[in-house]
Amino acid sequence: MNLTGQNFIHGERSGESREMLVSYDAHSGEALPWSFHQASSEEAAAACVAAGQAFDAYQATPPHQRARFLDNIADELDALDDEFIRLVMRETALPEGRIRGERARTSGQMRLFASVLRRGDYLGARIDLALNDRKPLPRPDLRQMKRGVGPVAVFGASNFPLAFSTAGGDTAAALAAGCPVVMKAHSGHMATAECVALAISRAVSKSAMPAGVFNMIFGAGIGEVVVRHPAIQAVGFTGSLKGGRALCDMAAARPQPIPVFAEMSSINPMILLPDALQNRGEQIARELSESVVMGCGQFCTNPGIFIAIRSAAFSQFLQTMASYIAQSAPQTMLNKGVLSSYEKGLNQLHHHPALSHLAGAPQKGDQAYPQLFKAQASLLIDGDALLQEEVFGPVTIAIEVDDQQQLTQALGGLRGQLTATLIGEPEDLHHFSTLVPLLEQKAGRLLINGYPTGVEVSDAMVHGGPYPATSDARGTSVGTLAIDRFLRPVCYQNYPDALLPDPLKNANPLHITRLVNGAWSDAALE
Amino acid sequence: MNLTGQNFIHGERSGESREMLVSYDAHSGEALPWSFHQASSEEAAAACVAAGQAFDAYQATPPHQRARFLDNIADELDALDDEFIRLVMRETALPEGRIRGERARTSGQMRLFASVLRRGDYLGARIDLALNDRKPLPRPDLRQMKRGVGPVAVFGASNFPLAFSTAGGDTAAALAAGCPVVMKAHSGHMATAECVALAISRAVSKSAMPAGVFNMIFGAGIGEVVVRHPAIQAVGFTGSLKGGRALCDMAAARPQPIPVFAEMSSINPMILLPDALQNRGEQIARELSESVVMGCGQFCTNPGIFIAIRSAAFSQFLQTMASYIAQSAPQTMLNKGVLSSYEKGLNQLHHHPALSHLAGAPQKGDQAYPQLFKAQASLLIDGDALLQEEVFGPVTIAIEVDDQQQLTQALGGLRGQLTATLIGEPEDLHHFSTLVPLLEQKAGRLLINGYPTGVEVSDAMVHGGPYPATSDARGTSVGTLAIDRFLRPVCYQNYPDALLPDPLKNANPLHITRLVNGAWSDAALE
Repeated sequence: MNLTGQNFIHGERSGESREMLVSYDAHSGEALPWSFHQASSEEAAAACVAAGQAFDAYQATPPHQRARFLDNIADELDALDDEFIRLVMRETALPEGRIRGERARTSGQMRLFASVLRRGDYLGARIDLALNDRKPLPRPDLRQMKRGVGPVAVFGASNFPLAFSTAGGDTAAALAAGCPVVMKAHSGHMATAECVALAISRAVSKSAMPAGVFNMIFGAGIGEVVVRHPAIQAVGFTGSLKGGRALCDMAAARPQPIPVFAEMSSINPMILLPDALQNRGEQIARELSESVVMGCGQFCTNPGIFIAIRSAAFSQFLQTMASYIAQSAPQTMLNKGVLSSYEKGLNQLHHHPALSHLAGAPQKGDQAYPQLFKAQASLLIDGDALLQEEVFGPVTIAIEVDDQQQLTQALGGLRGQLTATLIGEPEDLHHFSTLVPLLEQKAGRLLINGYPTGVEVSDAMVHGGPYPATSDARGTSVGTLAIDRFLRPVCYQNYPDALLPDPLKNANPLHITRLVNGAWSDAALE
Repeated sequence: MNLTGQNFIHGERSGESREMLVSYDAHSGEALPWSFHQASSEEAAAACVAAGQAFDAYQATPPHQRARFLDNIADELDALDDEFIRLVMRETALPEGRIRGERARTSGQMRLFASVLRRGDYLGARIDLALNDRKPLPRPDLRQMKRGVGPVAVFGASNFPLAFSTAGGDTAAALAAGCPVVMKAHSGHMATAECVALAISRAVSKSAMPAGVFNMIFGAGIGEVVVRHPAIQAVGFTGSLKGGRALCDMAAARPQPIPVFAEMSSINPMILLPDALQNRGEQIARELSESVVMGCGQFCTNPGIFIAIRSAAFSQFLQTMASYIAQSAPQTMLNKGVLSSYEKGLNQLHHHPALSHLAGAPQKGDQAYPQLFKAQASLLIDGDALLQEEVFGPVTIAIEVDDQQQLTQALGGLRGQLTATLIGEPEDLHHFSTLVPLLEQKAGRLLINGYPTGVEVSDAMVHGGPYPATSDARGTSVGTLAIDRFLRPVCYQNYPDALLPDPLKNANPLHITRLVNGAWSDAALE
């Protein structure tokens, strides 16, 4: 595999810096046989300038042409060979099936956004025809559609080397919106990032897109240059609360503030209702344990706490859960930094006087051991920070409450979440239905009798939620609504047909559905 | 007229503070016969808490019920009597016709949002039905809709005592979205604000809405308490760049940052193209002058600069324009603070070496005299701050460029704008069509052969634009899309029909159009 480790700027490769970075085999800790050029500030700025220069031409491409570009990226991703799969496995310690599945998810995501471009509803085309005879004043012809906001900075995530990284959801949404991308490759999988960036570059050439439509830089501490660069108009990020908040603060302090869509910290509460625990506690314990340890717990939607009302069935459930967690094998985490954070998080849980450890082998060596803790309900009710912050890895915390009233109190103490789940029998759901409005305020996705891990890429998905789950509850980073984050409306008043963009022309050449004088229509006008 | 000057909190009146505020007759400068209670920090917090407590119940009201509430507010506004009209005239110095027109605009806006609620497309309902047989994994049932973000803080604007204040666009959009409102009354028209708040209160009672759905406080320096209060989830503001940016910084620094939609500073460039100047320069000079002096120039969309290529026709145009401006009568501004800002702004223009004064009587006394200046193109090309910042009042600045290339450069130097206008003959528009993509990047609304003053309230309107025109180019503060600022998506996974909100139930009880498995449909399911 021939990787140069150079940055991707304006369709060319650049490696000005002599400072080289290394990627590691996640299992063995050995350095991989490539090195990567730490981007200089000048290179980071050049990537932003390139994206800015490409914006005009790229924004002007018809939606169908951008759809073909996204399809071409998808094809290039699917064509990556077995050597690539093995490389990603080495860099992340993720198993082959997961990598192949994630690759299919990533190319499928590109194709889904291509279908959104063809459907055209993302444009939000609205036409209010002139009312020349209206009194006291005539109404002018007004037509609105959405356009890309400008170049978008995207930060790759550690835990999804494909689906939330170089060609991941933020990149797909930005490119679909007509926004060039400046990608900051995650230091945990730089070789993977280079392979994917090369695939995107081939699609750029094949699709005759402007050279600066996709840029990628390697390096530590260089994201700040990108977020502060005047060409950048929005930021997509998946990672820690600390990292995401730092980007938000930086973006808010710019002379021209820009929006940051950071997906950060969520403990994804699960509420186990009484009849369900009574009727199928054993099954729930098995499924919940599987969800906690799946992928070594390295999912944003990992269930970090579960809550139930005190009962004999819940005591039995905790015993069963403890034995499942104790039996679960340790796994290699994405990289040493992630393991070290996990160990640090566990230490805090072990030393907190209001928590007790229920199951899990002592953490040792270079793998992560699944763990089960139990906390006092007062911790949640009082909003103790420890319980509210995600410990990234295969650990979950049980919370026992006295009764329905205390359950409501405990849920009220939760911060914003990506997901909130009810496990219940029909009678449970009827009896506890007043929890739903509370959960609606707390989370972006509400589940019943399912597990939050496993995020579908579709039109109806929301992978978002109130702070600190994300920095802006009005966005989603998974699913087709993600494109909305990178669009802004523009209104054309009294424009002659020839100067209007295609989506707003009288003839409706894109055959899209438009809101015309307050009613939806796919007809041509006049 | 019986005004107590007390704050509106949770459906009751409160005047804890002994610190009283006075409103003035804008013409005479005399104090009006009412005084208003400066809200204490406790009262401001109580208003936020009241809004927070009302959120659950208000958010749960069916869209049709909220639509009736908005219609009731509209009816109460229309029922305000002639004494009210005279009061607004006294507080703002705006003429009767304008006040009556603005009142109709404000009630019309409420009714337009009611129609949006009945149409239901603001909900963005999306349904991806379960695919139980999908390999390798089944797809769960996923349903998405938008919900209100939570209580919204709204700051009244000085220049639209009705349409951008107590019952104005931000309030209408927030209430339509299901978000309770905490209004900060503008100090320039507190009596008007109280009358309007009383009208809203009557509609709250008549519609049996929760008491805390609308709250209003009076006072200086109290907005900070509201913006920092944890119950508040978004902010709407219309005013100065300095004031708006301060709110943005405050909101971004909260433990939980929240979005601020601030409409701030725009100079609304007009580009006068050669053939149009040649063929109808006289007419354009008259129309442009009228737009500049209309309402004493106190519009966000007032044309603050106009640009043309050097020509004999443009020289002639400037002479005509100068005579129109010189002939325009002085007018009383909204209040003394606004006049003082205008005088300060004019002083800076007079003393700038790169500007020359073309027309306008010397500023004196208590009225604002219309003014015309001319600036060197280099000021715009070099991004000089003086030219970029709105001088609020009846003043405009001419900029003469050498040629098309310098015109493009000058436009490139502009910051973000609410509007950008081309005045041209068909041949002009053909010849200068490459300006359109540049203007698309600069402004929220693009006009051809019109004047930016006069903002239609409709589906297709955009009253927004890149910073510093607003703090977030993805929003609009006028038109029905304004509701989007206060909504966030929520996804329901595997929810039984009985627990789903009405917009997502199988039977489609609201009869709305939904995106079902990737295609728009208004059918019931199953």
